[in-house]
Amino acid sequence: MTETVPTDDPCANRIRFVLAGTSHPGNIGAAARAIRTMGFDRLDLVAPKRFPHEDAFALASGADAVLEDARVFETLGAAISDCRLVFGATARRRGVALPERTPREAAREAREAAVAGGEVAFVFGNERVGLDNDELKLCHAAVAIPSNPEFASLNLAHAVQVLAYELRLGALAAASEPEAGHERGPKADPPATSGDMEVLFAHLAQTLVDIDFHKGRAPDIVLRRLRRLFLRAQPDQREVRILHGILTEAQRAAGKSSNR
Amino acid sequence: MTETVPTDDPCANRIRFVLAGTSHPGNIGAAARAIRTMGFDRLDLVAPKRFPHEDAFALASGADAVLEDARVFETLGAAISDCRLVFGATARRRGVALPERTPREAAREAREAAVAGGEVAFVFGNERVGLDNDELKLCHAAVAIPSNPEFASLNLAHAVQVLAYELRLGALAAASEPEAGHERGPKADPPATSGDMEVLFAHLAQTLVDIDFHKGRAPDIVLRRLRRLFLRAQPDQREVRILHGILTEAQRAAGKSSNR
Repeated sequence: MTETVPTDDPCANRIRFVLAGTSHPGNIGAAARAIRTMGFDRLDLVAPKRFPHEDAFALASGADAVLEDARVFETLGAAISDCRLVFGATARRRGVALPERTPREAAREAREAAVAGGEVAFVFGNERVGLDNDELKLCHAAVAIPSNPEFASLNLAHAVQVLAYELRLGALAAASEPEAGHERGPKADPPATSGDMEVLFAHLAQTLVDIDFHKGRAPDIVLRRLRRLFLRAQPDQREVRILHGILTEAQRAAGKSSNR
Repeated sequence: MTETVPTDDPCANRIRFVLAGTSHPGNIGAAARAIRTMGFDRLDLVAPKRFPHEDAFALASGADAVLEDARVFETLGAAISDCRLVFGATARRRGVALPERTPREAAREAREAAVAGGEVAFVFGNERVGLDNDELKLCHAAVAIPSNPEFASLNLAHAVQVLAYELRLGALAAASEPEAGHERGPKADPPATSGDMEVLFAHLAQTLVDIDFHKGRAPDIVLRRLRRLFLRAQPDQREVRILHGILTEAQRAAGKSSNR
């Protein structure tokens, strides 16, 4: 895996990390270091208890520029007013009616929104109580790091690190596909929806019958494995079209016509 | 995604985190908290500068049992003598002749070794200098968190958090596929190797020609996309066999025989 991401990567420029109500300045500094190691530099603070503070700079371990550029807001609403997409980090499922994403899902959606030109924020609440309900209401989705139900609470800066890590994996994956960007134009294809995938699986199932793959065996197990395989790959819509094209040609080769 | 992992999960029981030459006891405590949030509890220490220490317990935030059970060794060799697989965390590529893994790759290999009954260790060096060459020589592979080349050094406990996070994702994925375990027997199929994947891609390329998928267009772009798609899915060997089977039947339907 390449370790370089273009300096004009939309993730780095349009994705910010927002710490709301942070008690310990050391955590602000550790978060600054965390995002900088992953290629980000936008950190905003909402009503920090103590900031600026020497502990923040000590824990930043050289990521001073991130702290110096950090903006301080009185309210979360003001900090994210220009954002198209806001994720609120939660330790575990809440009663709030907010869609929940894994870090990987959130990173993917954040990247898509940033590539499309939108501002994106990842918001982290106070160390002890997290985001309160009023803060969560400002978020479009919750993002929860899957953690041990018996000991679920990550250190604030550690949670920032995990999210920034997933965002960096997304940026690296995009950077390692320049030919795809060239081929697909400046914007990546949107991910296939669940509906797209179901249509693909139906086409796959019919094709396996048409080319006599099963030879009398029960198709269920193989189809279940193929379904898991393709869901794991999280194809985009163009990839799904390519797969449909292959299936259609295989059907034609078998003397069957696709009824898609 | 389910958030529960069986308590007898081999990852939790056979994978340990080893901190070598740690200077700051606070980092030991933060690492203890990090692994506990991800469902692990085995932390070993090699020649820590100060331990036990109140800072370690303060930063552990309740993960005291991990610290109390931590074993202290004089040498890394003694700490990992019973291990079948040892990963050494490095901030970036080194001159050492050690295979390098991403966190995700390392987590996958660690899980496989643990499921097969082996003891596995993830080793982290001193905060300032990392693992030295003598320590790296005891490792089977290096694991590098992909980081910003201009600011590459993660806090020690943050690096532990990222590795433990990837291991937990692997454990959760395994826990959410009970039907696969049932279907495949108690052990999962081994992952496809790079060599397996190249054979698959060659078969795929030939099949697309045989079923006249390209119709005169250059095949390179489509093949590159399909390669990325399947590499992303990280198929196991059984899944690769299923895909070969489908390709062979498609070739047969097109009146061509597979020369595999």
